[in-house]
Amino acid sequence: MSPFAETAEDRVAAHGEIALLEKIRVWLGDAMPAAPEGMGDDCAVLSRPAGNLFAADSLLHARHFDDATDPAHAGAKLLLRNLSDIAAMGGEPRYAVMSAFLPPSVSLAWLERFCRGFADCALAYHTALAGGDITESTEGPGFSLAITGHAERPLLRTSGKQGDHLYVTGALGGSLSGHHLRFVPRLQEGRWLATRPDVHACIDLTDGLGKDLNALLRDGLGVCLDTASVPLSKAAREIARESGRSAFWHACNDGEDYELLFSVDGKTDPGAFEQRWRDTFPTALTRIGNLRDNTGGEAPVLDSAGKPVENLTGYTHLRA
Amino acid sequence: MSPFAETAEDRVAAHGEIALLEKIRVWLGDAMPAAPEGMGDDCAVLSRPAGNLFAADSLLHARHFDDATDPAHAGAKLLLRNLSDIAAMGGEPRYAVMSAFLPPSVSLAWLERFCRGFADCALAYHTALAGGDITESTEGPGFSLAITGHAERPLLRTSGKQGDHLYVTGALGGSLSGHHLRFVPRLQEGRWLATRPDVHACIDLTDGLGKDLNALLRDGLGVCLDTASVPLSKAAREIARESGRSAFWHACNDGEDYELLFSVDGKTDPGAFEQRWRDTFPTALTRIGNLRDNTGGEAPVLDSAGKPVENLTGYTHLRA
Repeated sequence: MSPFAETAEDRVAAHGEIALLEKIRVWLGDAMPAAPEGMGDDCAVLSRPAGNLFAADSLLHARHFDDATDPAHAGAKLLLRNLSDIAAMGGEPRYAVMSAFLPPSVSLAWLERFCRGFADCALAYHTALAGGDITESTEGPGFSLAITGHAERPLLRTSGKQGDHLYVTGALGGSLSGHHLRFVPRLQEGRWLATRPDVHACIDLTDGLGKDLNALLRDGLGVCLDTASVPLSKAAREIARESGRSAFWHACNDGEDYELLFSVDGKTDPGAFEQRWRDTFPTALTRIGNLRDNTGGEAPVLDSAGKPVENLTGYTHLRA
Repeated sequence: MSPFAETAEDRVAAHGEIALLEKIRVWLGDAMPAAPEGMGDDCAVLSRPAGNLFAADSLLHARHFDDATDPAHAGAKLLLRNLSDIAAMGGEPRYAVMSAFLPPSVSLAWLERFCRGFADCALAYHTALAGGDITESTEGPGFSLAITGHAERPLLRTSGKQGDHLYVTGALGGSLSGHHLRFVPRLQEGRWLATRPDVHACIDLTDGLGKDLNALLRDGLGVCLDTASVPLSKAAREIARESGRSAFWHACNDGEDYELLFSVDGKTDPGAFEQRWRDTFPTALTRIGNLRDNTGGEAPVLDSAGKPVENLTGYTHLRA
């Protein structure tokens, strides 16, 4: 049976990433445990042994990096993407295994810089590369990294409660100008958040705030987004000058911010929480809204005036 | 910097898999712990938590399966390859994460059968799929699977001792006729072997006996191979009739046997060991030689008459 579709309807791209993931979940059936042990959060939270985290992420030439990318940055990025997932769970990284897909024509000099960039990053973030495999391919080079970590109290995406304050670290948008290769995964911040019982939900922003906000929601829970407060990066403002779109649009839709979006109990005093944060980290922190009741079934994301926020698609994978 | 070589010498394929892995080990430096925690065995043996196994293996269209392959078999094979690595450590599998590289034109119907084949295999072997990621690609479909497992006493490749009896399960060669898609990973056998203190070293045969034998060796240790005793599969004998090569050649070089090769203390009575095996498993077991002193630096693999065994290359990845 050919892996390739003969009809437009049978192409995976005809369905889009979200519908495809839902189908895959059905096909996998009982082989996939319920979240957080199975699909659905930044990392899986394993019960044997308890508290262990497990995740995977990939990096492909001409998609996540190109000929202009310093291979050392590409190697580091392969790990940084996974570290950001560990950070979002409030965990610490432990081990990684790497699968490489290499065409025979890949340059040894390029691969050396890639590996050394990866290794420097692994040493800096205390992650041991435990092994891997190499597959000869025609496309690529491509890499997949699986990572394990540990969290005493893993921060889940779906543990947010009505009334929670919503916070985001750093500034958003325009990541492709360089941030996507040079970001600092928010590991220290994530671990600190996990020690506070009033921090409920956490996710790292990879596909854009507009899309990733939805991962915090479930039936009956919506977001009130103070759109004016969303921290816009310098790169987002610069790109907006050329794109004809707003910097806010770029902050919501560009993706690859690798910042943390988290929720804090509504009873916590925001001023005191923010002061405690500033005493601990130099990282910018911005309160951008709160989680609200949505049992009425309104649009999931409303602005402060109660109007639906438009154009919050984020980055869509596998578009038709 | 382009990932592709401009000179023949700079191509990764100019160096071959073994030299390439050695270079990668150097480039990774301290980011890769020493074996068995780092590269070098069928699985990494993690110290945090102790006894945990971690490995990865990949599956690529047009390389490990083709348009004639039932997608359910391809999905199962992705897991079976990894389970064979767990079996070789004497472990039991626990969790897996899957990275998929999917061109937009991949068939949904094909992917469904692939996932269902994977899921049936995962349920049969008590392995939970904990998550994964999808990358849009042009080549493929390709998949990488990382797996965790647990072993009380992991069986390492390099724990063999001079005088050990060498055993192999099943029959070897001709795997491409079908065995590579339908094999039973030797998990039960591996776990049983790990309970016996007189079982020293173990590996699963993936690149052919001729190559994989060398993984058991180290300085001062060689193999005496009773070439006439190597169990030849029916498929190896059939292929030999057409290839002009011997069935023994195919048993040594075809690869993808996914049988266990292990060593048992020379003081153990082989007859009693083999009777105990037959009382426990229906799986064929053959004694094919022993580990011998090689401090004299002879050829690593000699036959019973003391002559070097020729043509033991096995399957070579990334050939020039």
